[in-house]
Amino acid sequence: MIVNYPELAVKELIDEVLNSYSLKYSDTCKCERCRNDIMALALNNLPAKYVVTDHGRIYTKAIYDQIGGKAQVIAAITAAIQKVQKNPRH
Amino acid sequence: MIVNYPELAVKELIDEVLNSYSLKYSDTCKCERCRNDIMALALNNLPAKYVVTDHGRIYTKAIYDQIGGKAQVIAAITAAIQKVQKNPRH
Repeated sequence: MIVNYPELAVKELIDEVLNSYSLKYSDTCKCERCRNDIMALALNNLPAKYVVTDHGRIYTKAIYDQIGGKAQVIAAITAAIQKVQKNPRH
Repeated sequence: MIVNYPELAVKELIDEVLNSYSLKYSDTCKCERCRNDIMALALNNLPAKYVVTDHGRIYTKAIYDQIGGKAQVIAAITAAIQKVQKNPRH
């Protein structure tokens, strides 16, 4: 099975980052459409890092170590939230 | 749902490219391990192109139009086959 590490990381962090962002900006939209647009945009700004994995569960720490750390993913998600909030497609 | 177009394209083309490669180089290994390593390597050399999709089936033509054409994907897979054949991990 192949997986893209950044995809696992973004899916792991999206709600945490969206929730803390919406504490600061209460009008932040968290609908399914915006959430998907944010993830796709964030992933298109992170380098692909596909790996082959045999076992089901991949430890999150291994993911972040491989892709340059959690902060890089949080930054990509935050930038994507700001862009999607300006031009929501919902 | 989000999908990475290049991932769909590589999964669509891997067997076609591997089979035609192995007609020229009969000792080409097509085991599951090598096949996965080839796909991961090819995808790490193709720009991510995540999109949001509501409907299940995505038309292959739409995929290739979006990522610069079928040839680019075939080239990435072929280069990955050559690399994996030199250092198989099976």
